[in-house]
Amino acid sequence: GRAYHLGLRKGDVPKYVLMPGEVERASRIASSWDRSWRLAQRREYSSFRGVYRGVDVAVVSTGIGGPATAIAVEELLELGADTLIRVGSTGAIQDDIEVGDIIITTAAVRMDGTSYQYAPAGYPASASYEVIMALVEAAESLGVRYHLGITASTDSFYVGQGRPGYGGYMPSWSRNLVPDLRQMRVLNFEMESATLLTLANIYGFRAGAVHAVYAQRVKDEFVAHAGEENLIKVADEAVRIL
Amino acid sequence: GRAYHLGLRKGDVPKYVLMPGEVERASRIASSWDRSWRLAQRREYSSFRGVYRGVDVAVVSTGIGGPATAIAVEELLELGADTLIRVGSTGAIQDDIEVGDIIITTAAVRMDGTSYQYAPAGYPASASYEVIMALVEAAESLGVRYHLGITASTDSFYVGQGRPGYGGYMPSWSRNLVPDLRQMRVLNFEMESATLLTLANIYGFRAGAVHAVYAQRVKDEFVAHAGEENLIKVADEAVRIL
Amino acid sequence: GRAYHLGLRKGDVPKYVLMPGEVERASRIASSWDRSWRLAQRREYSSFRGVYRGVDVAVVSTGIGGPATAIAVEELLELGADTLIRVGSTGAIQDDIEVGDIIITTAAVRMDGTSYQYAPAGYPASASYEVIMALVEAAESLGVRYHLGITASTDSFYVGQGRPGYGGYMPSWSRNLVPDLRQMRVLNFEMESATLLTLANIYGFRAGAVHAVYAQRVKDEFVAHAGEENLIKVADEAVRIL
Amino acid sequence: GRAYHLGLRKGDVPKYVLMPGEVERASRIASSWDRSWRLAQRREYSSFRGVYRGVDVAVVSTGIGGPATAIAVEELLELGADTLIRVGSTGAIQDDIEVGDIIITTAAVRMDGTSYQYAPAGYPASASYEVIMALVEAAESLGVRYHLGITASTDSFYVGQGRPGYGGYMPSWSRNLVPDLRQMRVLNFEMESATLLTLANIYGFRAGAVHAVYAQRVKDEFVAHAGEENLIKVADEAVRIL
Amino acid sequence: GRAYHLGLRKGDVPKYVLMPGEVERASRIASSWDRSWRLAQRREYSSFRGVYRGVDVAVVSTGIGGPATAIAVEELLELGADTLIRVGSTGAIQDDIEVGDIIITTAAVRMDGTSYQYAPAGYPASASYEVIMALVEAAESLGVRYHLGITASTDSFYVGQGRPGYGGYMPSWSRNLVPDLRQMRVLNFEMESATLLTLANIYGFRAGAVHAVYAQRVKDEFVAHAGEENLIKVADEAVRIL
Amino acid sequence: GRAYHLGLRKGDVPKYVLMPGEVERASRIASSWDRSWRLAQRREYSSFRGVYRGVDVAVVSTGIGGPATAIAVEELLELGADTLIRVGSTGAIQDDIEVGDIIITTAAVRMDGTSYQYAPAGYPASASYEVIMALVEAAESLGVRYHLGITASTDSFYVGQGRPGYGGYMPSWSRNLVPDLRQMRVLNFEMESATLLTLANIYGFRAGAVHAVYAQRVKDEFVAHAGEENLIKVADEAVRIL
Repeated sequence: GRAYHLGLRKGDVPKYVLMPGEVERASRIASSWDRSWRLAQRREYSSFRGVYRGVDVAVVSTGIGGPATAIAVEELLELGADTLIRVGSTGAIQDDIEVGDIIITTAAVRMDGTSYQYAPAGYPASASYEVIMALVEAAESLGVRYHLGITASTDSFYVGQGRPGYGGYMPSWSRNLVPDLRQMRVLNFEMESATLLTLANIYGFRAGAVHAVYAQRVKDEFVAHAGEENLIKVADEAVRIL
Repeated sequence: GRAYHLGLRKGDVPKYVLMPGEVERASRIASSWDRSWRLAQRREYSSFRGVYRGVDVAVVSTGIGGPATAIAVEELLELGADTLIRVGSTGAIQDDIEVGDIIITTAAVRMDGTSYQYAPAGYPASASYEVIMALVEAAESLGVRYHLGITASTDSFYVGQGRPGYGGYMPSWSRNLVPDLRQMRVLNFEMESATLLTLANIYGFRAGAVHAVYAQRVKDEFVAHAGEENLIKVADEAVRIL
Repeated sequence: GRAYHLGLRKGDVPKYVLMPGEVERASRIASSWDRSWRLAQRREYSSFRGVYRGVDVAVVSTGIGGPATAIAVEELLELGADTLIRVGSTGAIQDDIEVGDIIITTAAVRMDGTSYQYAPAGYPASASYEVIMALVEAAESLGVRYHLGITASTDSFYVGQGRPGYGGYMPSWSRNLVPDLRQMRVLNFEMESATLLTLANIYGFRAGAVHAVYAQRVKDEFVAHAGEENLIKVADEAVRIL
Repeated sequence: GRAYHLGLRKGDVPKYVLMPGEVERASRIASSWDRSWRLAQRREYSSFRGVYRGVDVAVVSTGIGGPATAIAVEELLELGADTLIRVGSTGAIQDDIEVGDIIITTAAVRMDGTSYQYAPAGYPASASYEVIMALVEAAESLGVRYHLGITASTDSFYVGQGRPGYGGYMPSWSRNLVPDLRQMRVLNFEMESATLLTLANIYGFRAGAVHAVYAQRVKDEFVAHAGEENLIKVADEAVRIL
Repeated sequence: GRAYHLGLRKGDVPKYVLMPGEVERASRIASSWDRSWRLAQRREYSSFRGVYRGVDVAVVSTGIGGPATAIAVEELLELGADTLIRVGSTGAIQDDIEVGDIIITTAAVRMDGTSYQYAPAGYPASASYEVIMALVEAAESLGVRYHLGITASTDSFYVGQGRPGYGGYMPSWSRNLVPDLRQMRVLNFEMESATLLTLANIYGFRAGAVHAVYAQRVKDEFVAHAGEENLIKVADEAVRIL
Repeated sequence: GRAYHLGLRKGDVPKYVLMPGEVERASRIASSWDRSWRLAQRREYSSFRGVYRGVDVAVVSTGIGGPATAIAVEELLELGADTLIRVGSTGAIQDDIEVGDIIITTAAVRMDGTSYQYAPAGYPASASYEVIMALVEAAESLGVRYHLGITASTDSFYVGQGRPGYGGYMPSWSRNLVPDLRQMRVLNFEMESATLLTLANIYGFRAGAVHAVYAQRVKDEFVAHAGEENLIKVADEAVRIL
């Protein structure tokens, strides 16, 4: 059936699914619930189900990038999910965002390849306003410092985000990347939201994305897992609200 | 100064501005308020100011299309506006939308030219979730039948929306246009929202769009001004809520 | 019928139609004829008919930009027009062009969105050589200073023409715009000719464009309505010649 | 120096240069003049100089395609030429054009690669109106049947013009090619005009193109050298007129 | 340091690295060697080192898609690897390829997003001829049935490879995908080779790709792990030969 | 029949055909064989047949650029050829390549127009690994200094290769061309390989390309025919090996 890659069957997943990129974050999210149990572990798809404050919820890691994310989305829809929230890590490109802060994505810049195989260039990768509201309400109620705005989703962690590649590779177009996106009020770089949000609009399910800031690109700061605990709390609470 | 095209000066406009495409709708909107007076009339830019239920509000018509709309937006920002709502008419391409219904745009497909002179292809033309919420709340409280979703903004009323041009002109690519967009859950065609919403994200102001369905493209029905009264009520109420 | 937006009926317009962008210029053009009367005023479409030196002629304003212009063109063809001449204002980007000079467009750079919904990227937006000849002859006979060459038609008056947008917005690509176009011998910027001339080639009608220079972008000079009187005389005379 | 490929020196060429694609047509053109002598023969560049009715003229073959044509143009400009007229053969795609007819190009669809290395997509490949006029006048005065309109210049004689390639190769996009271009009133296919006319606009020299119809693609007729004699007469006369 | 995602340090990897997409295949490959031990397991990056017939070799899984693959490549180069061979599974689109056969990629069609963030559209994703030779020699010596040719690397397993998406989603462009690629002699679909081979050409390391056919798309057959044993043998042997 | 442009008939050409761009090089290649005789001379297509060390071989010049090359390829395939090797001249852009050196192309950057009329942007222009091997073996056995790598094939000798055009024309994008390609390890510029190698992959014939370095672009050196003798020897030997 459709869930070939995830290794899941109908009935395995509830309506709400959290989707971290990192395989290991899936288990950390599951641990944050009142109860949880493993569903499957195949390729980069680690899945758990559980209950958070009385709400049935699952988590499925997507791995890095749009191609792996789209497979997870296609198969989760087939299994009956209808509200998918990315729970990711990110690098910020605006001055006023600190390492450890939370970023709630209102819409994504489609700098991935996957979304273009689903929809032409101008189609919007926008989050569901209901998911945005729930994430904002969760962050507010938890007193977590957050930012709300546009996220750029790229297909390359190094050159595609304006970092030099191996041996200092830096073609001319990559040099304008960060300054242009900063001018356009883009808050941060990551690698999965554009795919998720484009598919959400095409297929009519609700989706959103929330990120913890591990890297501050302007100040060249990096703290692995900074804000991850807050990130998971905000995501869990948003599910409860939705 | 900046307001060369609009013929307005600093202080002329409040924070909230309604933006119909049709020049004549500007005066109909102004008439719906408790008090209103004309500001200016230049080119396609007809402007009024007034008070609706105690809220200072203005209306400025944009004319048809992104080029004229972007000029209005640039000059209104310079004048101090920070919440812009398009109040337009539209053609629906989904079966379940009736002539006279209201469509609230969550995000737009950028099939205009203007937004590409401001931002690269993948940048999202998404509405502010606060404006979406206010429009939904307004429509609900007024009991107006509405639909919420993606809008396609084109630069051509005829060929660019899948209608035959003069003499039946219908190049191959225009024949897949409507079927593809319907599959992608696009609700409707119009010609200004993508530009407005792209500029809103770049410049950091709040924006949204609401439309009355004059044309039902699937059933080939058309009623001029169908639902316009409801449209104006919803827009006015949304301003009050915001 | 087809003339939904213009508010005109078959028989209302003769073969020759002048097409200013500015709504108000339509009446100034009509006033320059021996006799004239208003046809309609809808949205940005202000129309007059009249007689100039024995020739039946009409004027229909297009509003700003390709989207509004294409609607006017589609509907005028349906009504029987076959020779359309844009009578516009413009900003010059070459040193030797002065404010108040006249520019006759031989062909346009398609930096609009509308023409791409009618024809693929390489299709030429070239003026009819007969209209070019008539405009040149008119300018020569009137002793008006004119320039003949390529015009760039954009969909954005500010950022798309290399001017900073709100808050100084100036993405990297907009900085090379004017220097590159100057090198390619482009004379001027405006916002309607590319659409008009592309449609003329597709639909097989005669078209041309003539502009008065209001802005000198190299010297940063601007005089509203500079050369407008000459502009109108040249356009009127060209109609007589054609 | 610049004329590396052509094998010519300053002073070798006059202002007017005829440019056939076929190497052998260069000598047939030279033979049509009152006097002529060979200049050089290098690669696909066969050149002659001569006098036609008292006018100094040269002919330089370009070989097939934009890449070879652009080299000839660059080097001829360096040598002082300022009016270049392509004298080519072509395949017609409209019903009313017969084998042996003459086609005068007003502008070309840029389906070549070369012109894009000189100018962005929307830049027009339009002929000089003076050259168009001279060609029309020449054809009229000689009583030659001619057509005036848009020419599509491709980089591929087989697949790029909608003919099946080796083994019947016919990808999906090539099947809409001819029907779409016919709808857009394109008269004919050839392989050099777009490059020539784009460079003419960039560099500010006069250029045009005239073709003899060897192939009628709609009726699947082909006669090698049909109309070539008329073609050469029209080109020669146009030079005299210019 | 650079190996942030892989969790490896300098000295951990030898020159030759095999790169399966599937996390679990990494351990199956390691098991095929004479000796092997785990290096790390982070996200989708499972790594082992070992010795095959006296040659030092490592395996690092890439996860699905170009984005995750490029990260692995960047970090492996930093660690000193210089010959990378993808060892993947694939779906064949030509009639004469059977489930369980082996496909050796000579070059890939770049239908990914990642490679475009490293190099412009025309840059080739070609395999090193030395790696191709070694893979061919390995397959020949092992008597394994193999095919040699072009591979298409997409960013979407479903819609991007011409399969219907959720709810039967099948936009117009996806319908020509498989027929066109078959005509162009493309053998198979997978999701990582284009990225790997583009980076190999940019960075100057040797790379290749070999796949086991799990799916026969023309006959709609699918056998998970078909030919995987042969695949691993061929890859191991190729390393020995290189 | 198909060989309209070449002027050849079935049986005229053997399986192996050498393809210089320069018309005159065809005869120099033929002179290098044990026996040879002219086949035809039409347009830029000069053809000879002969015997080199017992192997039947032909040479057909392609003229400059992809458009003329594709015609030759299509017609040669129709005539039965199945191994085509370009034998060209080139300009090197890497420091360590000297005038007179030989470059063997592993794959080409498609900066031509022709290949895009045959295949979409990501399709690879890669040489047959058997032809690469034969060329390497030939160069090694002859003791000729050679380089192996990526070649950029452009449609413009001047502006498209980063040289200033007439009057110093140098648009912004042409200034990054050489630095970017050098960073991507591109060895050299020429104008035919991308077309040849793309068609080889589509049509399933073997092809390769070898070039003599006439120009060293970094050091601004140029020697016409430098290394041409070695070039011809390498090509001849490769045919013998294949």
